[in-house]
Amino acid sequence: MTHTNDFSEILSGRRSVRQFDEEVKISQAELLEMIQEAVRAPSSINMQPWRFLVVTSKKAKERLRPLIRFNTRQNDTSAAMILILGDLQCYEYGEQIYDGAVATGLMPQEVRDKQLSTMLPYYQNLSKEEMTRIVTIDASLAAMQFMLVARKYGYETNPIGGFEAERLPDALDYNKERYVPVMILAVGKAKEAGFPSYRLSAEEITRFE
Amino acid sequence: MTHTNDFSEILSGRRSVRQFDEEVKISQAELLEMIQEAVRAPSSINMQPWRFLVVTSKKAKERLRPLIRFNTRQNDTSAAMILILGDLQCYEYGEQIYDGAVATGLMPQEVRDKQLSTMLPYYQNLSKEEMTRIVTIDASLAAMQFMLVARKYGYETNPIGGFEAERLPDALDYNKERYVPVMILAVGKAKEAGFPSYRLSAEEITRFE
Repeated sequence: MTHTNDFSEILSGRRSVRQFDEEVKISQAELLEMIQEAVRAPSSINMQPWRFLVVTSKKAKERLRPLIRFNTRQNDTSAAMILILGDLQCYEYGEQIYDGAVATGLMPQEVRDKQLSTMLPYYQNLSKEEMTRIVTIDASLAAMQFMLVARKYGYETNPIGGFEAERLPDALDYNKERYVPVMILAVGKAKEAGFPSYRLSAEEITRFE
Repeated sequence: MTHTNDFSEILSGRRSVRQFDEEVKISQAELLEMIQEAVRAPSSINMQPWRFLVVTSKKAKERLRPLIRFNTRQNDTSAAMILILGDLQCYEYGEQIYDGAVATGLMPQEVRDKQLSTMLPYYQNLSKEEMTRIVTIDASLAAMQFMLVARKYGYETNPIGGFEAERLPDALDYNKERYVPVMILAVGKAKEAGFPSYRLSAEEITRFE
């Protein structure tokens, strides 16, 4: 349910929240709704390499707990811990995505054919390193939108970058050759407000040419 | 100047725009204002590793032109091409950031001391590969917010990931050992509307645990 649609408030009021109200759960339907909005983010050749592994059960949270260092409070109290992965074989969805665009009238068949025939082979031949870079960027874009969308629904988030990346695949049962972990987002109803944080001025970090 | 503050419209109406109105320039003051809002994004230990190299002059755009492959139309017509870089030596701003937080009442001195004394050495000792990963993620978060903020101001963007990364440092005169290019954002007043694009359903890309 929409809590606020005020963009400035959503953007400037976002804080990292570490203590959530344990009583407040978020339904799978609502989580999917938020994810669907978040993935309006752009991605390289629209390959949408973001994948969401949403940890809500007690059992899965227990497996995650030892792998997130000093972030256990978020794990214990959040409605969900969302592991955002980048799919190194995202191009396998290429035909499905471009066919979907044609079927919904968003793209002419000949554009689909031309784009897929040039871009798919290019993508399939990228090095693992370069593909990792691309899916990391794209998954981060979706992650940022998710943090904002969550606030629209009245929830808060905490982005977690420090985790035991090597041990995540076994703990959460995903293919480590295919998926790279990018970020974990804790999401829930805030119990304690987050702290506002300082920013360098735009002048200090910008150069005009 | 605020064009709209409707979050849903900003988020769902965003398209990649490739043809801008060449007559519409954006002042440095307004670009800085948009950057300042975009960098409300979170970052790992608040190191804010994003840097903005804003290309607006004809001369600099000419140097950029051969390095952005099939994206020359955006370069030719946009008000600015913003190269977003990740600063691998972002920790050099650590004291300034945390001192700023203390000075503005956002953080007690003892928290500043404790956090800096543990986190700065950790950051300084990260491998180049790991630091690249972190600054790439953080810069992407700011990039996503910039794309949304631009729409608040009535502008549109096009994220460009395909560029000659090896030749950028010379063309735009930055230290290639220190800064990694993450994304180029074309920004300006749209002349042609962008195309809406297809997305996989949230169900297809989400697993619950």
